[in-house]
Amino acid sequence: MSGKVYLVGAGPGDPELLTLKAAGLLARAEVVLCDSLVSREVMALISQDALLVDVGKRAGRKLLTQDEINSLLVNYARQGKAVVRLKGGDPLLFGRAGEEMEALRRAGVEFEVVPGITAAVAAAAAARISLTDRRVASQVVFTTFSRGEQANCLNWAAITPETTIAIYMPGPHYGEVAVRLIENGIASGTPCVIVSRATCAEQQVRWSNLAALSDEDQLPAPSLLLVGRVAAQDLEQWRERVRATVFSPEKEFRDLPI
Amino acid sequence: MSGKVYLVGAGPGDPELLTLKAAGLLARAEVVLCDSLVSREVMALISQDALLVDVGKRAGRKLLTQDEINSLLVNYARQGKAVVRLKGGDPLLFGRAGEEMEALRRAGVEFEVVPGITAAVAAAAAARISLTDRRVASQVVFTTFSRGEQANCLNWAAITPETTIAIYMPGPHYGEVAVRLIENGIASGTPCVIVSRATCAEQQVRWSNLAALSDEDQLPAPSLLLVGRVAAQDLEQWRERVRATVFSPEKEFRDLPI
Repeated sequence: MSGKVYLVGAGPGDPELLTLKAAGLLARAEVVLCDSLVSREVMALISQDALLVDVGKRAGRKLLTQDEINSLLVNYARQGKAVVRLKGGDPLLFGRAGEEMEALRRAGVEFEVVPGITAAVAAAAAARISLTDRRVASQVVFTTFSRGEQANCLNWAAITPETTIAIYMPGPHYGEVAVRLIENGIASGTPCVIVSRATCAEQQVRWSNLAALSDEDQLPAPSLLLVGRVAAQDLEQWRERVRATVFSPEKEFRDLPI
Repeated sequence: MSGKVYLVGAGPGDPELLTLKAAGLLARAEVVLCDSLVSREVMALISQDALLVDVGKRAGRKLLTQDEINSLLVNYARQGKAVVRLKGGDPLLFGRAGEEMEALRRAGVEFEVVPGITAAVAAAAAARISLTDRRVASQVVFTTFSRGEQANCLNWAAITPETTIAIYMPGPHYGEVAVRLIENGIASGTPCVIVSRATCAEQQVRWSNLAALSDEDQLPAPSLLLVGRVAAQDLEQWRERVRATVFSPEKEFRDLPI
Protein backbone atom coordinates (compact mmCIF):
# COMPACT_ATOMS: atom_id res chain seq x y z
CA MET A 1 0.00 0.00 0.00
CA SER A 2 1.35 3.43 -0.80
CA GLY A 3 0.49 6.39 1.35
CA LYS A 4 -0.51 9.89 0.38
CA VAL A 5 -0.09 13.34 1.88
CA TYR A 6 -2.94 15.86 1.89
CA LEU A 7 -1.96 19.50 2.44
CA VAL A 8 -5.21 20.73 3.94
CA GLY A 9 -6.43 24.23 4.74
CA ALA A 10 -8.04 24.42 8.17
CA GLY A 11 -9.63 27.79 7.45
CA PRO A 12 -9.85 30.72 9.85
CA GLY A 13 -11.12 28.96 12.97
CA ASP A 14 -14.86 28.27 12.75
CA PRO A 15 -15.09 24.51 12.01
CA GLU A 16 -18.17 25.22 9.87
CA LEU A 17 -15.81 26.96 7.45
CA LEU A 18 -13.85 23.78 6.75
CA THR A 19 -14.55 22.41 3.30
CA LEU A 20 -16.51 19.15 3.06
CA LYS A 21 -13.36 17.55 1.69
CA ALA A 22 -11.18 18.74 4.58
CA ALA A 23 -13.71 17.54 7.16
CA GLY A 24 -13.83 14.12 5.49
CA LEU A 25 -10.06 13.85 5.45
CA LEU A 26 -9.74 14.80 9.14
CA ALA A 27 -12.25 12.09 10.03
CA ARG A 28 -10.27 9.36 8.31
CA ALA A 29 -6.65 10.51 8.56
CA GLU A 30 -4.12 8.14 10.10
CA VAL A 31 -1.51 10.80 10.83
CA VAL A 32 -2.09 14.56 11.22
CA LEU A 33 0.75 17.10 11.38
CA CYS A 34 -0.76 20.25 12.75
CA ASP A 35 0.18 23.95 13.02
CA SER A 36 -0.41 26.07 16.10
CA LEU A 37 -2.72 28.33 14.05
CA VAL A 38 -5.38 25.63 13.78
CA SER A 39 -8.30 26.21 16.16
CA ARG A 40 -9.28 23.77 18.92
CA GLU A 41 -12.72 23.40 17.37
CA VAL A 42 -11.16 22.19 14.11
CA MET A 43 -8.75 19.92 16.01
CA ALA A 44 -11.78 18.28 17.64
CA LEU A 45 -12.84 16.95 14.21
CA ILE A 46 -9.66 14.89 13.81
CA SER A 47 -10.21 11.14 14.07
CA GLN A 48 -9.61 9.82 17.59
CA ASP A 49 -7.54 7.03 16.05
CA ALA A 50 -5.15 9.39 14.24
CA LEU A 51 -1.61 10.00 15.42
CA LEU A 52 -1.43 13.75 16.07
CA VAL A 53 1.91 15.56 15.69
CA ASP A 54 2.09 19.21 16.78
CA VAL A 55 4.68 20.89 14.56
CA GLY A 56 3.77 24.48 15.42
CA LYS A 57 5.67 27.07 17.34
CA ARG A 58 4.57 27.49 20.94
CA ALA A 59 5.64 30.40 23.14
CA GLY A 60 8.45 31.22 20.76
CA ARG A 61 9.91 27.71 20.91
CA LYS A 62 10.20 26.06 17.52
CA LEU A 63 9.23 22.46 18.01
CA LEU A 64 10.42 21.04 14.69
CA THR A 65 12.51 22.41 11.85
CA GLN A 66 11.10 22.56 8.33
CA ASP A 67 13.45 19.76 7.26
CA GLU A 68 12.21 17.61 10.13
CA ILE A 69 8.59 18.25 9.12
CA ASN A 70 9.40 17.36 5.50
CA SER A 71 11.02 14.10 6.63
CA LEU A 72 8.05 13.17 8.78
CA LEU A 73 5.65 13.71 5.87
CA VAL A 74 7.77 11.55 3.56
CA ASN A 75 8.33 8.82 6.14
CA TYR A 76 4.72 8.43 7.25
CA ALA A 77 3.58 8.34 3.62
CA ARG A 78 6.18 5.66 2.87
CA GLN A 79 4.69 3.63 5.68
CA GLY A 80 1.48 3.64 3.64
CA LYS A 81 -0.36 6.10 5.86
CA ALA A 82 -3.00 8.64 4.90
CA VAL A 83 -1.22 11.77 6.15
CA VAL A 84 -2.87 15.17 6.62
CA ARG A 85 -0.68 18.27 6.88
CA LEU A 86 -3.14 20.68 8.45
CA LYS A 87 -2.46 24.41 8.11
CA GLY A 88 -4.43 27.42 9.31
CA GLY A 89 -6.24 29.28 6.50
CA ASP A 90 -5.21 28.14 3.02
CA PRO A 91 -2.09 25.99 2.68
CA LEU A 92 -0.69 27.94 -0.29
CA LEU A 93 -0.81 31.41 1.28
CA PHE A 94 1.92 32.38 3.76
CA GLY A 95 2.74 28.86 4.82
CA ARG A 96 5.72 26.74 3.91
CA ALA A 97 3.82 24.39 1.66
CA GLY A 98 6.18 25.20 -1.22
CA GLU A 99 9.07 23.52 0.53
CA GLU A 100 6.93 20.62 1.71
CA MET A 101 5.59 19.97 -1.80
CA GLU A 102 9.10 20.03 -3.21
CA ALA A 103 10.29 17.49 -0.63
CA LEU A 104 7.33 15.23 -1.44
CA ARG A 105 7.93 15.60 -5.19
CA ARG A 106 11.60 14.72 -4.87
CA ALA A 107 10.77 11.71 -2.67
CA GLY A 108 8.18 10.51 -5.19
CA VAL A 109 5.38 10.69 -2.62
CA GLU A 110 1.85 11.25 -3.91
CA PHE A 111 0.24 14.41 -2.57
CA GLU A 112 -2.77 16.65 -3.03
CA VAL A 113 -3.66 20.18 -1.94
CA VAL A 114 -7.06 20.87 -0.39
CA PRO A 115 -7.63 24.64 -0.29
CA GLY A 116 -9.05 26.46 2.71
CA ILE A 117 -10.64 29.79 3.58
CA THR A 118 -7.78 32.25 4.01
CA ALA A 119 -7.70 34.89 6.75
CA ALA A 120 -8.22 37.86 4.41
CA VAL A 121 -11.56 36.66 3.06
CA ALA A 122 -12.65 35.56 6.54
CA ALA A 123 -11.81 39.03 7.85
CA ALA A 124 -13.72 40.64 4.98
CA ALA A 125 -16.71 38.39 5.71
CA ALA A 126 -16.55 39.36 9.40
CA ALA A 127 -16.38 43.07 8.55
CA ARG A 128 -18.88 42.57 5.71
CA ILE A 129 -16.91 44.52 3.12
CA SER A 130 -16.08 43.54 -0.44
CA LEU A 131 -12.31 43.42 -0.95
CA THR A 132 -12.71 44.50 -4.57
CA ASP A 133 -15.85 46.66 -4.42
CA ARG A 134 -15.93 47.86 -8.01
CA ARG A 135 -17.02 51.36 -6.99
CA VAL A 136 -13.66 52.06 -5.33
CA ALA A 137 -11.27 49.15 -5.88
CA SER A 138 -9.98 47.03 -8.72
CA GLN A 139 -7.65 44.60 -7.02
CA VAL A 140 -6.37 43.34 -3.69
CA VAL A 141 -2.88 42.48 -2.49
CA PHE A 142 -2.31 39.90 0.25
CA THR A 143 0.90 40.75 2.05
CA THR A 144 2.64 40.58 5.43
CA PHE A 145 4.31 43.09 7.67
CA SER A 146 7.65 42.61 9.31
CA ARG A 147 10.10 45.12 10.69
CA GLY A 148 13.04 43.42 9.02
CA GLU A 149 14.46 43.80 5.57
CA GLN A 150 11.58 41.84 4.03
CA ALA A 151 9.38 44.87 4.52
CA ASN A 152 11.41 46.65 1.86
CA CYS A 153 10.31 44.14 -0.75
CA LEU A 154 6.71 45.13 -0.49
CA ASN A 155 7.03 48.27 -2.55
CA TRP A 156 4.00 49.76 -0.90
CA ALA A 157 4.83 53.08 -2.50
CA ALA A 158 3.64 51.64 -5.78
CA ILE A 159 0.24 50.58 -4.56
CA THR A 160 -2.54 52.45 -6.34
CA PRO A 161 -5.51 53.94 -4.48
CA GLU A 162 -7.70 51.32 -6.20
CA THR A 163 -5.78 48.53 -4.47
CA THR A 164 -7.04 47.05 -1.23
CA ILE A 165 -4.23 45.88 1.06
CA ALA A 166 -4.79 42.84 3.24
CA ILE A 167 -1.98 42.62 5.79
CA TYR A 168 -1.49 39.24 7.41
CA MET A 169 0.13 39.17 10.84
CA PRO A 170 0.28 42.97 11.28
CA GLY A 171 2.24 42.41 14.50
CA PRO A 172 2.00 44.00 17.89
CA HIS A 173 2.33 47.62 16.81
CA TYR A 174 -0.34 48.79 14.37
CA GLY A 175 1.27 52.23 14.46
CA GLU A 176 4.38 50.94 12.71
CA VAL A 177 2.30 49.60 9.85
CA ALA A 178 0.50 52.93 9.56
CA VAL A 179 3.77 54.88 9.57
CA ARG A 180 5.21 52.67 6.83
CA LEU A 181 2.11 53.09 4.64
CA ILE A 182 1.93 56.86 5.15
CA GLU A 183 5.68 57.22 4.46
CA ASN A 184 4.98 55.48 1.19
CA GLY A 185 2.45 58.09 0.17
CA ILE A 186 -0.82 56.50 1.16
CA ALA A 187 -3.20 59.15 2.54
CA SER A 188 -3.40 59.18 6.33
CA GLY A 189 -7.19 59.35 6.10
CA THR A 190 -7.38 56.02 4.28
CA PRO A 191 -9.92 53.82 6.04
CA CYS A 192 -8.85 50.54 7.59
CA VAL A 193 -10.30 47.81 9.72
CA ILE A 194 -8.65 45.38 12.14
CA VAL A 195 -10.31 41.99 12.48
CA SER A 196 -9.19 39.85 15.39
CA ARG A 197 -9.99 36.10 15.50
CA ALA A 198 -12.32 36.33 12.50
CA THR A 199 -15.20 33.81 12.52
CA CYS A 200 -14.44 32.68 16.10
CA ALA A 201 -16.65 33.39 19.12
CA GLU A 202 -14.16 36.04 20.30
CA GLN A 203 -14.21 37.88 16.96
CA GLN A 204 -13.63 41.65 17.16
CA VAL A 205 -13.93 44.22 14.37
CA ARG A 206 -12.33 47.64 14.88
CA TRP A 207 -12.92 50.40 12.30
CA SER A 208 -10.22 53.03 12.02
CA ASN A 209 -8.04 54.93 9.57
CA LEU A 210 -4.27 55.12 9.12
CA ALA A 211 -3.90 58.33 11.14
CA ALA A 212 -5.76 56.84 14.12
CA LEU A 213 -4.33 53.32 13.87
CA SER A 214 -1.47 53.85 16.33
CA ASP A 215 -3.96 54.75 19.06
CA GLU A 216 -5.92 51.51 18.68
CA ASP A 217 -5.55 48.91 21.42
CA GLN A 218 -3.84 45.71 20.48
CA LEU A 219 -6.40 42.99 19.68
CA PRO A 220 -5.76 39.27 20.26
CA ALA A 221 -3.91 37.36 17.50
CA PRO A 222 -4.47 36.10 14.96
CA SER A 223 -5.57 39.38 13.50
CA LEU A 224 -5.69 40.85 10.04
CA LEU A 225 -5.59 44.47 8.86
CA LEU A 226 -7.53 45.57 5.77
CA VAL A 227 -6.52 48.97 4.34
CA GLY A 228 -8.19 50.86 1.52
CA ARG A 229 -11.28 52.65 0.36
CA VAL A 230 -13.35 49.48 0.73
CA ALA A 231 -12.71 49.59 4.49
CA ALA A 232 -14.90 52.65 4.95
CA GLN A 233 -17.65 51.44 7.23
CA ASP A 234 -20.25 53.29 5.19
CA LEU A 235 -18.81 53.46 1.72
CA GLU A 236 -21.44 55.76 0.20
CA GLN A 237 -21.15 58.23 3.07
CA TRP A 238 -17.37 58.18 2.78
CA ARG A 239 -17.53 58.78 -0.98
CA GLU A 240 -19.84 61.74 -0.46
CA ARG A 241 -17.40 63.24 2.01
CA VAL A 242 -14.54 62.77 -0.46
CA ARG A 243 -16.59 64.36 -3.25
CA ALA A 244 -17.28 67.37 -1.00
CA THR A 245 -13.60 67.76 -0.16
CA VAL A 246 -11.95 67.83 -3.58
CA PHE A 247 -13.03 68.31 -7.13
CA SER A 248 -11.29 65.29 -8.53
CA PRO A 249 -11.27 62.57 -5.90
CA GLU A 250 -10.09 59.85 -8.25
CA LYS A 251 -6.90 61.69 -9.12
CA GLU A 252 -6.15 63.39 -5.84
CA PHE A 253 -6.93 60.56 -3.49
CA ARG A 254 -3.45 60.25 -2.05
CA ASP A 255 -3.43 63.88 -0.93
CA LEU A 256 -6.87 64.01 0.61
CA PRO A 257 -6.96 66.02 3.83
CA ILE A 258 -9.32 63.50 5.44
CA MET B 1 -40.83 36.09 11.27
CA SER B 2 -38.03 38.07 9.76
CA GLY B 3 -35.94 36.70 6.94
CA LYS B 4 -32.24 36.74 6.42
CA VAL B 5 -29.91 36.86 3.42
CA TYR B 6 -26.77 34.71 3.27
CA LEU B 7 -24.14 35.77 0.74
CA VAL B 8 -22.54 32.40 0.14
CA GLY B 9 -19.36 31.42 -1.71
CA ALA B 10 -19.93 28.41 -3.96
CA GLY B 11 -16.20 27.83 -4.41
CA PRO B 12 -14.47 26.88 -7.66
CA GLY B 13 -16.72 24.05 -8.83
CA ASP B 14 -15.99 20.82 -6.96
CA PRO B 15 -18.89 20.47 -4.49
CA GLU B 16 -16.46 18.91 -1.99
CA LEU B 17 -14.86 22.36 -1.76
CA LEU B 18 -18.00 23.96 -0.39
CA THR B 19 -17.70 24.83 3.28
CA LEU B 20 -19.80 22.80 5.73
CA LYS B 21 -21.75 25.98 6.44
CA ALA B 22 -22.49 26.64 2.77
CA ALA B 23 -23.63 23.06 2.20
CA GLY B 24 -25.93 23.29 5.21
CA LEU B 25 -27.43 26.56 3.99
CA LEU B 26 -28.06 25.20 0.47
CA ALA B 27 -29.88 22.23 1.98
CA ARG B 28 -32.30 24.41 3.95
CA ALA B 29 -32.60 27.58 1.84
CA GLU B 30 -36.06 28.72 0.82
CA VAL B 31 -34.91 31.00 -1.99
CA VAL B 32 -31.59 30.81 -3.88
CA LEU B 33 -30.38 33.53 -6.24
CA CYS B 34 -27.65 31.98 -8.28
CA ASP B 35 -24.87 33.18 -10.61
CA SER B 36 -23.94 31.48 -13.86
CA LEU B 37 -20.46 30.76 -12.46
CA VAL B 38 -21.82 28.21 -9.99
CA SER B 39 -21.21 24.62 -11.10
CA ARG B 40 -23.99 22.11 -11.79
CA GLU B 41 -22.59 19.83 -9.11
CA VAL B 42 -22.98 22.57 -6.50
CA MET B 43 -26.46 23.46 -7.81
CA ALA B 44 -27.45 19.82 -7.23
CA LEU B 45 -27.00 20.37 -3.47
CA ILE B 46 -29.70 23.04 -3.32
CA SER B 47 -32.89 21.95 -1.54
CA GLN B 48 -35.52 20.62 -3.94
CA ASP B 49 -38.06 22.78 -2.15
CA ALA B 50 -36.16 26.02 -2.70
CA LEU B 51 -37.22 28.61 -5.22
CA LEU B 52 -34.28 28.95 -7.60
CA VAL B 53 -33.69 32.28 -9.38
CA ASP B 54 -30.98 32.42 -12.05
CA VAL B 55 -29.57 35.94 -12.03
CA GLY B 56 -26.48 35.23 -14.11
CA LYS B 57 -25.56 36.31 -17.57
CA ARG B 58 -26.11 33.72 -20.28
CA ALA B 59 -24.80 33.97 -23.80
CA GLY B 60 -24.14 37.67 -23.33
CA ARG B 61 -27.73 38.40 -22.30
CA LYS B 62 -28.01 40.03 -18.93
CA LEU B 63 -31.00 38.48 -17.26
CA LEU B 64 -31.41 40.87 -14.34
CA THR B 65 -29.87 44.24 -13.50
CA GLN B 66 -27.98 44.70 -10.22
CA ASP B 67 -30.82 46.89 -8.90
CA GLU B 68 -33.31 44.16 -9.70
CA ILE B 69 -31.18 41.58 -7.88
CA ASN B 70 -30.90 43.90 -4.87
CA SER B 71 -34.69 44.33 -4.82
CA LEU B 72 -35.29 40.60 -4.99
CA LEU B 73 -32.95 39.99 -2.05
CA VAL B 74 -34.70 42.65 0.04
CA ASN B 75 -38.20 41.54 -0.91
CA TYR B 76 -37.72 37.82 -0.30
CA ALA B 77 -36.10 38.55 3.07
CA ARG B 78 -39.02 40.82 4.00
CA GLN B 79 -41.32 37.89 3.26
CA GLY B 80 -39.50 36.10 6.08
CA LYS B 81 -37.56 33.75 3.80
CA ALA B 82 -34.12 32.25 4.32
CA VAL B 83 -32.46 33.62 1.19
CA VAL B 84 -29.13 32.42 -0.21
CA ARG B 85 -27.25 34.61 -2.69
CA LEU B 86 -24.92 32.03 -4.20
CA LYS B 87 -21.77 33.29 -5.94
CA GLY B 88 -18.95 31.43 -7.64
CA GLY B 89 -15.70 31.43 -5.62
CA ASP B 90 -15.76 33.84 -2.66
CA PRO B 91 -18.55 36.42 -2.49
CA LEU B 92 -16.26 39.32 -1.57
CA LEU B 93 -13.76 38.93 -4.44
CA PHE B 94 -14.75 40.23 -7.88
CA GLY B 95 -18.46 39.98 -7.35
CA ARG B 96 -20.95 42.72 -6.70
CA ALA B 97 -21.53 41.82 -3.10
CA GLY B 98 -20.56 45.36 -2.06
CA GLU B 99 -23.64 46.81 -3.70
CA GLU B 100 -25.87 44.00 -2.48
CA MET B 101 -24.71 44.41 1.12
CA GLU B 102 -25.30 48.15 0.91
CA ALA B 103 -28.85 47.62 -0.37
CA LEU B 104 -29.53 45.14 2.45
CA ARG B 105 -28.05 47.51 5.05
CA ARG B 106 -30.15 50.41 3.85
CA ALA B 107 -33.27 48.25 3.83
CA GLY B 108 -32.54 47.04 7.38
CA VAL B 109 -32.40 43.41 6.27
CA GLU B 110 -30.26 41.04 8.34
CA PHE B 111 -27.47 39.41 6.36
CA GLU B 112 -24.35 37.32 6.77
CA VAL B 113 -21.38 36.49 4.53
CA VAL B 114 -20.21 32.89 4.21
CA PRO B 115 -16.78 32.83 2.54
CA GLY B 116 -15.83 30.41 -0.21
CA ILE B 117 -12.72 29.06 -1.91
CA THR B 118 -11.70 31.68 -4.46
CA ALA B 119 -10.44 30.79 -7.94
CA ALA B 120 -6.83 31.85 -7.32
CA VAL B 121 -6.27 29.45 -4.43
CA ALA B 122 -8.12 26.70 -6.28
CA ALA B 123 -5.86 27.24 -9.31
CA ALA B 124 -2.78 27.17 -7.09
CA ALA B 125 -4.00 23.93 -5.50
CA ALA B 126 -4.56 22.44 -8.96
CA ALA B 127 -1.09 23.49 -10.13
CA ARG B 128 0.34 22.62 -6.70
CA ILE B 129 2.33 25.82 -6.28
CA SER B 130 2.51 28.10 -3.27
CA LEU B 131 1.32 31.61 -4.18
CA THR B 132 3.72 33.15 -1.66
CA ASP B 133 6.58 30.62 -1.68
CA ARG B 134 8.98 32.42 0.65
CA ARG B 135 12.00 31.46 -1.45
CA VAL B 136 10.89 33.69 -4.34
CA ALA B 137 7.76 35.63 -3.36
CA SER B 138 6.54 37.83 -0.54
CA GLN B 139 3.01 38.71 -1.61
CA VAL B 140 0.26 38.06 -4.13
CA VAL B 141 -2.09 40.41 -5.97
CA PHE B 142 -5.53 39.27 -7.11
CA THR B 143 -6.52 41.29 -10.15
CA THR B 144 -8.49 41.17 -13.40
CA PHE B 145 -7.69 41.89 -17.00
CA SER B 146 -9.84 43.97 -19.26
CA ARG B 147 -8.98 45.75 -22.44
CA GLY B 148 -10.82 48.88 -21.36
CA GLU B 149 -9.71 51.81 -19.31
CA GLN B 150 -9.90 49.78 -16.12
CA ALA B 151 -6.72 48.02 -17.15
CA ASN B 152 -4.85 51.28 -16.62
CA CYS B 153 -5.72 51.24 -12.95
CA LEU B 154 -3.76 48.10 -12.32
CA ASN B 155 -0.38 49.80 -12.29
CA TRP B 156 1.33 46.58 -13.19
CA ALA B 157 4.53 48.52 -13.81
CA ALA B 158 4.87 48.89 -10.08
CA ILE B 159 4.65 45.20 -9.30
CA THR B 160 7.84 43.88 -7.75
CA PRO B 161 9.46 40.62 -8.87
CA GLU B 162 8.57 39.18 -5.46
CA THR B 163 4.87 39.65 -6.21
CA THR B 164 2.82 36.80 -7.62
CA ILE B 165 0.02 37.99 -9.93
CA ALA B 166 -3.24 36.05 -10.01
CA ILE B 167 -5.30 37.26 -12.96
CA TYR B 168 -9.01 36.46 -12.81
CA MET B 169 -10.86 36.23 -16.13
CA PRO B 170 -7.78 36.66 -18.34
CA GLY B 171 -10.11 36.74 -21.35
CA PRO B 172 -9.88 35.13 -24.75
CA HIS B 173 -6.45 36.42 -25.71
CA TYR B 174 -3.65 35.44 -23.36
CA GLY B 175 -1.24 37.25 -25.67
CA GLU B 176 -2.76 40.61 -24.78
CA VAL B 177 -2.18 39.98 -21.10
CA ALA B 178 1.42 39.01 -21.81
CA VAL B 179 2.02 42.11 -23.92
CA ARG B 180 0.63 44.35 -21.20
CA LEU B 181 2.82 42.76 -18.55
CA ILE B 182 5.97 42.87 -20.69
CA GLU B 183 5.27 46.51 -21.66
CA ASN B 184 5.20 47.22 -17.95
CA GLY B 185 8.68 45.85 -17.49
CA ILE B 186 8.05 42.33 -16.32
CA ALA B 187 10.64 39.96 -17.83
CA SER B 188 9.33 37.98 -20.79
CA GLY B 189 10.84 34.83 -19.32
CA THR B 190 8.70 35.09 -16.20
CA PRO B 191 6.99 31.75 -15.63
CA CYS B 192 3.21 31.51 -15.69
CA VAL B 193 0.55 28.84 -15.56
CA ILE B 194 -2.99 28.80 -16.92
CA VAL B 195 -5.50 26.75 -14.95
CA SER B 196 -8.80 26.04 -16.67
CA ARG B 197 -11.80 24.79 -14.68
CA ALA B 198 -9.75 24.24 -11.55
CA THR B 199 -10.99 21.38 -9.30
CA CYS B 200 -13.53 20.18 -11.92
CA ALA B 201 -13.26 16.91 -13.84
CA GLU B 202 -12.24 18.89 -16.96
CA GLN B 203 -9.40 20.67 -15.14
CA GLN B 204 -6.40 21.58 -17.33
CA VAL B 205 -3.06 23.00 -16.21
CA ARG B 206 -0.80 24.60 -18.84
CA TRP B 207 2.74 25.67 -17.89
CA SER B 208 4.21 28.53 -19.91
CA ASN B 209 6.03 31.83 -19.66
CA LEU B 210 5.09 35.36 -20.75
CA ALA B 211 7.01 35.15 -24.05
CA ALA B 212 5.24 31.92 -25.05
CA LEU B 213 1.83 32.80 -23.69
CA SER B 214 0.41 34.18 -26.93
CA ASP B 215 1.02 30.83 -28.63
CA GLU B 216 -1.00 28.88 -26.07
CA ASP B 217 -4.37 27.54 -27.15
CA GLN B 218 -7.39 29.05 -25.49
CA LEU B 219 -8.60 26.86 -22.63
CA PRO B 220 -12.24 26.62 -21.52
CA ALA B 221 -13.52 29.28 -19.10
CA PRO B 222 -13.48 29.84 -16.24
CA SER B 223 -9.73 30.04 -16.25
CA LEU B 224 -7.13 31.76 -14.16
CA LEU B 225 -3.61 32.91 -14.97
CA LEU B 226 -0.87 32.84 -12.34
CA VAL B 227 2.25 34.85 -13.18
CA GLY B 228 5.50 35.00 -11.24
CA ARG B 229 8.51 33.10 -10.03
CA VAL B 230 6.32 30.72 -8.05
CA ALA B 231 4.82 29.49 -11.34
CA ALA B 232 8.04 27.77 -12.37
CA GLN B 233 7.06 24.12 -12.62
CA ASP B 234 10.27 23.08 -10.90
CA LEU B 235 11.21 26.01 -8.74
CA GLU B 236 14.63 24.75 -7.66
CA GLN B 237 15.62 23.94 -11.24
CA TRP B 238 14.45 27.35 -12.36
CA ARG B 239 16.40 29.08 -9.59
CA GLU B 240 19.55 27.21 -10.57
CA ARG B 241 19.14 28.33 -14.17
CA VAL B 242 18.68 31.94 -13.02
CA ARG B 243 21.76 31.70 -10.80
CA ALA B 244 23.80 30.42 -13.75
CA THR B 245 22.61 33.26 -15.97
CA VAL B 246 23.37 36.33 -13.90
CA PHE B 247 25.47 37.16 -10.89
CA SER B 248 22.77 38.96 -8.96
CA PRO B 249 19.44 37.37 -9.78
CA GLU B 250 17.56 39.18 -7.04
CA LYS B 251 18.42 42.60 -8.41
CA GLU B 252 18.41 41.87 -12.12
CA PHE B 253 15.34 39.68 -12.30
CA ARG B 254 13.39 41.97 -14.58
CA ASP B 255 16.11 41.90 -17.23
CA LEU B 256 16.79 38.20 -17.26
CA PRO B 257 17.39 36.84 -20.75
CA ILE B 258 15.41 33.70 -19.99
